[in-house]
Amino acid sequence: MRDLVEIGMGRSARRAYELDDVEIIPSRRTRSSKDVSTAWQIDAYRFDIPLITHPSDAVVSPRTAVAVGELGGLGVINAEGLWARHSDVEDAMFRLTRAAEEDDPLAVTRLLQELHAAPIQADLIAEAIKSVRDSGVTVAVRVSPQRAAELTPDLLAAGVEILVLQGTIVSAEHVARDGEPINLKQFIADLDVPVIAGGVGDYRTAMHLMRTGAAGVIVGYGHSSGVTTTDTVLGIGVPMATAIADAAAARRDYLDETGGRYVHVIADGGVHSSGDIAKSIACGADAVMLGEPLSAATEAPGQGLYWTSAAAHPSVPRSRVTVGAEAEVDLRTLLFGPSADPDGAVNLFGALKRAMAKTGYSDLKEFQKVGLTVRG
Amino acid sequence: MRDLVEIGMGRSARRAYELDDVEIIPSRRTRSSKDVSTAWQIDAYRFDIPLITHPSDAVVSPRTAVAVGELGGLGVINAEGLWARHSDVEDAMFRLTRAAEEDDPLAVTRLLQELHAAPIQADLIAEAIKSVRDSGVTVAVRVSPQRAAELTPDLLAAGVEILVLQGTIVSAEHVARDGEPINLKQFIADLDVPVIAGGVGDYRTAMHLMRTGAAGVIVGYGHSSGVTTTDTVLGIGVPMATAIADAAAARRDYLDETGGRYVHVIADGGVHSSGDIAKSIACGADAVMLGEPLSAATEAPGQGLYWTSAAAHPSVPRSRVTVGAEAEVDLRTLLFGPSADPDGAVNLFGALKRAMAKTGYSDLKEFQKVGLTVRG
Amino acid sequence: MRDLVEIGMGRSARRAYELDDVEIIPSRRTRSSKDVSTAWQIDAYRFDIPLITHPSDAVVSPRTAVAVGELGGLGVINAEGLWARHSDVEDAMFRLTRAAEEDDPLAVTRLLQELHAAPIQADLIAEAIKSVRDSGVTVAVRVSPQRAAELTPDLLAAGVEILVLQGTIVSAEHVARDGEPINLKQFIADLDVPVIAGGVGDYRTAMHLMRTGAAGVIVGYGHSSGVTTTDTVLGIGVPMATAIADAAAARRDYLDETGGRYVHVIADGGVHSSGDIAKSIACGADAVMLGEPLSAATEAPGQGLYWTSAAAHPSVPRSRVTVGAEAEVDLRTLLFGPSADPDGAVNLFGALKRAMAKTGYSDLKEFQKVGLTVRG
Amino acid sequence: MRDLVEIGMGRSARRAYELDDVEIIPSRRTRSSKDVSTAWQIDAYRFDIPLITHPSDAVVSPRTAVAVGELGGLGVINAEGLWARHSDVEDAMFRLTRAAEEDDPLAVTRLLQELHAAPIQADLIAEAIKSVRDSGVTVAVRVSPQRAAELTPDLLAAGVEILVLQGTIVSAEHVARDGEPINLKQFIADLDVPVIAGGVGDYRTAMHLMRTGAAGVIVGYGHSSGVTTTDTVLGIGVPMATAIADAAAARRDYLDETGGRYVHVIADGGVHSSGDIAKSIACGADAVMLGEPLSAATEAPGQGLYWTSAAAHPSVPRSRVTVGAEAEVDLRTLLFGPSADPDGAVNLFGALKRAMAKTGYSDLKEFQKVGLTVRG
Repeated sequence: MRDLVEIGMGRSARRAYELDDVEIIPSRRTRSSKDVSTAWQIDAYRFDIPLITHPSDAVVSPRTAVAVGELGGLGVINAEGLWARHSDVEDAMFRLTRAAEEDDPLAVTRLLQELHAAPIQADLIAEAIKSVRDSGVTVAVRVSPQRAAELTPDLLAAGVEILVLQGTIVSAEHVARDGEPINLKQFIADLDVPVIAGGVGDYRTAMHLMRTGAAGVIVGYGHSSGVTTTDTVLGIGVPMATAIADAAAARRDYLDETGGRYVHVIADGGVHSSGDIAKSIACGADAVMLGEPLSAATEAPGQGLYWTSAAAHPSVPRSRVTVGAEAEVDLRTLLFGPSADPDGAVNLFGALKRAMAKTGYSDLKEFQKVGLTVRG
Repeated sequence: MRDLVEIGMGRSARRAYELDDVEIIPSRRTRSSKDVSTAWQIDAYRFDIPLITHPSDAVVSPRTAVAVGELGGLGVINAEGLWARHSDVEDAMFRLTRAAEEDDPLAVTRLLQELHAAPIQADLIAEAIKSVRDSGVTVAVRVSPQRAAELTPDLLAAGVEILVLQGTIVSAEHVARDGEPINLKQFIADLDVPVIAGGVGDYRTAMHLMRTGAAGVIVGYGHSSGVTTTDTVLGIGVPMATAIADAAAARRDYLDETGGRYVHVIADGGVHSSGDIAKSIACGADAVMLGEPLSAATEAPGQGLYWTSAAAHPSVPRSRVTVGAEAEVDLRTLLFGPSADPDGAVNLFGALKRAMAKTGYSDLKEFQKVGLTVRG
Repeated sequence: MRDLVEIGMGRSARRAYELDDVEIIPSRRTRSSKDVSTAWQIDAYRFDIPLITHPSDAVVSPRTAVAVGELGGLGVINAEGLWARHSDVEDAMFRLTRAAEEDDPLAVTRLLQELHAAPIQADLIAEAIKSVRDSGVTVAVRVSPQRAAELTPDLLAAGVEILVLQGTIVSAEHVARDGEPINLKQFIADLDVPVIAGGVGDYRTAMHLMRTGAAGVIVGYGHSSGVTTTDTVLGIGVPMATAIADAAAARRDYLDETGGRYVHVIADGGVHSSGDIAKSIACGADAVMLGEPLSAATEAPGQGLYWTSAAAHPSVPRSRVTVGAEAEVDLRTLLFGPSADPDGAVNLFGALKRAMAKTGYSDLKEFQKVGLTVRG
Repeated sequence: MRDLVEIGMGRSARRAYELDDVEIIPSRRTRSSKDVSTAWQIDAYRFDIPLITHPSDAVVSPRTAVAVGELGGLGVINAEGLWARHSDVEDAMFRLTRAAEEDDPLAVTRLLQELHAAPIQADLIAEAIKSVRDSGVTVAVRVSPQRAAELTPDLLAAGVEILVLQGTIVSAEHVARDGEPINLKQFIADLDVPVIAGGVGDYRTAMHLMRTGAAGVIVGYGHSSGVTTTDTVLGIGVPMATAIADAAAARRDYLDETGGRYVHVIADGGVHSSGDIAKSIACGADAVMLGEPLSAATEAPGQGLYWTSAAAHPSVPRSRVTVGAEAEVDLRTLLFGPSADPDGAVNLFGALKRAMAKTGYSDLKEFQKVGLTVRG
């Protein structure tokens, strides 16, 4: 049984935990960082670090997708974002930066809404995909469930290798009186490429998505404190430590149910520092989807700006556009150090290795079993 | 059994939760916003949105009562407030604004106390009621238990359709050695119009109020963090998530006891954003009473000022007068969007619909069963 | 069994609660404030309000002791404080004010230490006692356990009616290898006046003090957040809600053990507003000892300054000297209103009456049973 | 069984407590400070106060090591720090101070990294050891597990009496594929001097270290809030109240297992005031390792600067360099008072004595049993 409390007579709620609520505890073994591997594999694709980029235009351009791939991670381009709608994204970013600096949050959101009102142009996104493909790294793009059926054929034709089907909350059972929602199971079965789908927030939705044939399930919706406001706007929240552990339980049960199909759990939210990456894996994730922490790289197209896709929603925006400090580190240093920053913003995956070494684990799968505490 | 803790030897207290402590969790279904209804009905009156205004003069004038009604909610005028005591409320508001800007909180409270020392004039409130009635929307006014017997005949004569009998805490059993307190059961039985009564803070008081024949029971006393200070002044608090759930339990038990009489539970407190509206319904409310969030509308008579009626108490004030930002949205946009504000202050009921859609529910009654978490 | 948690293997700690952690819940009854009594009696002395002053020189001069007595409470003069050591206390206060304004906390503490290094003069304190006695109100003074034997004879001769024997922590069993600690039981038995003793922090110490024959037991040590630093300096804390409830349990058990001797529990700490007074009684106190809240009265000798006696300790000071806002209310208004302050700083005992009325209780003894919540 | 919570399905975490979460409760006895002893002994070495210095160059120079020793504690010089690498440490400190004042945290960390990139010079550290030895106080130095085998012979030759083998996390089982990690058991058995080893964070690691033959085990890694960022960088944390209690349980079990070998538990982290020292002992520690609190002494080589050794890590720094206020107290006053500071920064061990006296305990070993509360 879950840990339930009665919030009022006959009404219970489950106790849930954020990454901030947990800490990793050292165990009786230590190990050298050199003997630690952070590699993982999804379908036929192998990666040196458990990093997938959140498909935010602020951090992923075709060029940074290549850079991330070359550094051992997976860059994901948003097929419904600025690169799919504007030929001059640099100008759009410039206008956003200028608006953001004027300290009128509504104006920034309005500009973002306006920029996303432009139509998606198939040739623009095809061109972006081609440039990534030409570099030789794995090509991944993100589509929403609403537009997946419409956009996917062109994306595949352009050379996409991994499809990320992602909305704030994606369920295997979308109910609609009118319209013809996507049948995920059929959709995935018909594709030749692996699909990573989400986000989800609980065991059942994770399990249902696994049963559609997804190769990976995303937990969370890329929320970032100070940026994302889903709780304030919708009352909905996905405490990540609990949600990751639940999805990991679904992974185990689905593995058993299928006699061996392992669906990867990708944590997308609540990560602000290298310590949070370690905690995500420790709670059961196979990889993390990073957005905001990458916005500090000199290569980030947003030049310090950050937002999640919910920021551009035409009527119910649920993310702020934030302005970071001027970036001083390149992506390689951001991921692998060395760092002179004591706050875990730099050397993100070097620190993960060190956390694993200091607690005596040599690979990600084992590290999912490390001891945890929650503050009393 | 409730969730009790022993705070000291032989002295227990109940664990109770605010709306801020809970979050809604997504379920395995999603739905389109277009297929969601937020309609509800009390007695013969049907409303598109579960909105009743808190009878604060800062947000409800006769004109805004009409606007709220036309937009699908229920506006409630305070029959003991400024519109009942002053012919030139605009001037009173102007003086309050000026006082509030001078950053002397005691002076503002004193002015409010002074403005409420003026006598209630039957013709003023009758005129206000008439202007609402003429517009064709449902007419509701609020009286206190202390003055209900005296004021109600005139209010009914003026055309009131729903009577809101409201004090900070209203009980069915007011004990007094001298004086002749109102007998609620008799009072309600003698009326031809439905009565909404409250606030209450627990199961028993809610149950007793239901047994007096009230059509709706108000939970809470319109408290708003940063505005209301009942806890600091009296030590009394009504944690809303718990109080709403308790009143919903009383509603169920009373429904069973009477073989089918459904008394509506109206949550009045703790709502600062659209997310809090969703949480109120999720905890068991049928509708919310909104005060402070409406003060941001361009039509609000207080022009950004806000206070609850306890602010004007002649000897024990329990609410501050707060000054909001200059309003930039009209009431329609405030309720239905579109919004460029990521903090849930705009598109209050569009966001409610979206929260329901994202968790797979199609009407308010079902949404009361959505999953909840509390922070570990 | 108490509510224990295991903080580490084989080491448990008790969950304990501050007044801030609890809230009073309304019950199914309400009552008129006019029908509420806040009177109580200790030994032969009857008081209209459950107020004893904390013996801080910042709030109690001989003159304010008289004023408090005339308003229905009990003023307690510190027989080891400034009035006992200096003939010109006004000048001492002036120097403290000047030092406090210079924003050098160490300098203020040093001055306070220096002022308390002056010897106690029997004639000064006798004169102070006489001036209170002449006014006709009950005369109470405070001595420390260390100096009680030495000072008490002169104090009794000067006309003291209630003796307050108070240290940060007072136990019935003071162990010492050298020196001759006071035998409390003998000391109290030999006196003709009732003794109020404390502070205590737990059931056992409270019970032992009751068995010495004390008429009242003080719970806590006058701590005030922002002023007192005992936790930081000594690691020792007395969470008041728990400590009061424990002492009330000792009161019940001692009443049973003696077949009817009722020892009063006086809460001394954690009170910052009228709501905290209500909570103290609700947790089981018979009266509250107030310090800091009284420093806002125009009659307070410290003119806004506040400190507790631990501030003047020559080597381990455990209280800051704080500077409040300029006082604008006289003592009568501070205690009984009317108030234009929404933060519970004014009308302290009018608000207590109102809290009792709103929850349906008519006297202090009954109000000790009111329902409580703790935040989940 | 430990106090476990289920953070998600099939994934549990242990509730753990920081020193800030606990408070000491007064008991029924009090005692005079004069009758309290804070003495303790490790191997043949006896100390008047349970103080070992954290080997931070910011607080321990050869000269302060002597001063600490003469005042009854044990100073520990870092054999891998600035005194081992630079002949002119004063100049290094001057450069650090200047960098710290320029408000560019990265620059300070970079300078610290650069200063630690200089080679260790055997003659420099030998000279430092000699100067301490000449003074007649006990000589202790710290080495890391990585360099212990290489550096120890010279250190012993120079006259070290107690060896502190310390890393952020030290385990008895360091696993490595290449390299030849130190065999702690063999290493300690071969030495003629007692070894204090750590830090550890849990029962098992503490137990394993005890079994290597260590005379003392260090709990924690000298973390200091505002300074240390291990949780942010690595996700790893050692809540001290829990960790100390666990290590104390290991001490008891090892004592039983060996039929009488008592290994001392030394708490190294979470201490910011004298109250935290008392809490550390109360949770089960035999002594505390102090770093930051000593940086306020006029004799501290860092002149107010503070950092822990993790600040100088070449690629994953995990500590800030902080700048304190200008020191006004000498070391003797810092340790023994008198104090005019109400915040527990001065008279650190006088306050410990007072805490023991006020709760009725006469020595450290008994005080480990004092009652504790945790905030509800």
